[in-house]
Amino acid sequence: MPELRKDPVTRRWVIIASERGKRPSDFVKTEIVENNSGCPFCEGREKMTPPEVLSYREVGTDNDTPGWTTRVVPDSNPLLSPVGDLERRGISIYDKMNTFGFHEIVVETAEHNQNILTMEPWHIEKVLWAYKERINEIKKDDRIDHVLMVKNFGHDSGSRFQLVHPHSHILGFPAVPKRVVDKFRGAKKFFEYRERCIWCDMLLQEKDLQDRVIMENEHFLSFCPFASRFPFEAMIVPKTHRSHYEELTNEEIVHLAHILKHTVGKIFKALSSPSFNYIFFTAPWEVRYEEHFHWHIEIMPRVTGIAGFEWGTGFYINPTSPEAAAEILREIEI
Amino acid sequence: MPELRKDPVTRRWVIIASERGKRPSDFVKTEIVENNSGCPFCEGREKMTPPEVLSYREVGTDNDTPGWTTRVVPDSNPLLSPVGDLERRGISIYDKMNTFGFHEIVVETAEHNQNILTMEPWHIEKVLWAYKERINEIKKDDRIDHVLMVKNFGHDSGSRFQLVHPHSHILGFPAVPKRVVDKFRGAKKFFEYRERCIWCDMLLQEKDLQDRVIMENEHFLSFCPFASRFPFEAMIVPKTHRSHYEELTNEEIVHLAHILKHTVGKIFKALSSPSFNYIFFTAPWEVRYEEHFHWHIEIMPRVTGIAGFEWGTGFYINPTSPEAAAEILREIEI
Repeated sequence: MPELRKDPVTRRWVIIASERGKRPSDFVKTEIVENNSGCPFCEGREKMTPPEVLSYREVGTDNDTPGWTTRVVPDSNPLLSPVGDLERRGISIYDKMNTFGFHEIVVETAEHNQNILTMEPWHIEKVLWAYKERINEIKKDDRIDHVLMVKNFGHDSGSRFQLVHPHSHILGFPAVPKRVVDKFRGAKKFFEYRERCIWCDMLLQEKDLQDRVIMENEHFLSFCPFASRFPFEAMIVPKTHRSHYEELTNEEIVHLAHILKHTVGKIFKALSSPSFNYIFFTAPWEVRYEEHFHWHIEIMPRVTGIAGFEWGTGFYINPTSPEAAAEILREIEI
Repeated sequence: MPELRKDPVTRRWVIIASERGKRPSDFVKTEIVENNSGCPFCEGREKMTPPEVLSYREVGTDNDTPGWTTRVVPDSNPLLSPVGDLERRGISIYDKMNTFGFHEIVVETAEHNQNILTMEPWHIEKVLWAYKERINEIKKDDRIDHVLMVKNFGHDSGSRFQLVHPHSHILGFPAVPKRVVDKFRGAKKFFEYRERCIWCDMLLQEKDLQDRVIMENEHFLSFCPFASRFPFEAMIVPKTHRSHYEELTNEEIVHLAHILKHTVGKIFKALSSPSFNYIFFTAPWEVRYEEHFHWHIEIMPRVTGIAGFEWGTGFYINPTSPEAAAEILREIEI
């Protein structure tokens, strides 16, 4: 049974999922499912996944049958599972708990060979709606403190199972992950000093300077962050202060689909189909996060490696200035 | 000119080294110098590197000529450079400074095709001595707060320039890196509560349980950490409380060379020559670190990728339990 263990020094949680590979010989290269012959996410193979928890489908079609455009299913090999309980426990200085939580897959489209560049705006909106609906469902379980949405794309994205079929992950955690705590702490310090949200200030600053802006629409801004860790790293931030993703209105979802498609699309063209990850960071549900946290998306193309230097220090080396990256991205037409 | 930028939210520093690659077409695969034909670290090519700052060499031979066993030179394309000054400055909410610091290369041996398994113990001791001597020199510059030693080995280690010739990096920073601050904070909290060093407690715990121990000698213990992020991750910790690497005695260096060679060697054999990184973490020089920080080495084999999940959350997924890894490593003979 997998377990969550906390590093006593850095307080970082690790999932020890030892049934996934115990022996040295298990570390073979990741298998990539390029064609749709065995793809469990294709239309007509709905029985290959656990039963769906949400789908947008033609009127009159049954769950777990063809006729859908977007479908959410529990991961068949989940990192976190809503079965059982946390059972927090300690062994002397060490803490562990069960891998309680939610791990769901959003199958973004029924068609195997689509991607964000080829998907229609209305279809990307469905995916964004699915995130919202599932968050609202998952937050009803009061053992869950936080939700993230993650997409891993391509050979170098570090994904364990590389299915080409467009999909993303929804993860519900029983503890607030370390990087989210780090963001919250930094934002809180800023707020205490300036009495303003740091992301709201950043938006004003970026709009004023313009040199790191990628694009903008009525409700969102995308830009290359001042201290980008990776070449062509980007961030999408809602212009109005909102702590939680699930507060999105219908109109905002239309604008979000637009800026997500175009920002990712520009990076995709600039770097000739790079591997990438993107992550939707939304606030934990505790009330104190509301004024300090501003939900946002981080987009990280994976064109550079991560060496011991970065691991050891948390110092990243980025060979492309965000200003140069933004200039290139602004010029690319989608 | 490269610059150091601080992320305003997470307070993580990033080196923007934009002369290293500005355009999307610059992200070609890393070039690997396998054979010694153009290797700047081989004996006889001393003029291909900047002048040495330290070497252990035959009596009567001149600097920057053959006759050495271990040699330290400034990196020819440094991430941090001791020329100029910090010039800390802000632009509204953002902070930056120049990439002031030290970046030196320890050429561990004159022979191109050696590695830690083939190197003699006395030779590894030379490398460990070189670290100590250079730290003592670098710390004289009071603009430097912290030093790390890092080794990147193999194709998947994320190294930018992959020279096969055995070498490691010494990095002197003008600010304490985020991961070191994280470790210090965790250790300080533990100390305030228990009035003991957390690493000293961990050593007692690991020696008592034995199930994660890899090996032990008079002065050091190596084990797979309780919350290992990676399969076969290992840590080497001095048994006596020591905050700073440079306090090592001659006798301790002999024992360190032994446990480093054997611990890395066991991992190397278990995983059939994996890529790996190791990092020597030693305390910053401020007095307050002395009782809280305990110097140690982290060894990270690079057999699994890092996906969006890990990036986004700081939650790692490790498919091999540290207990299973330690059991395998204990049995391997070097």
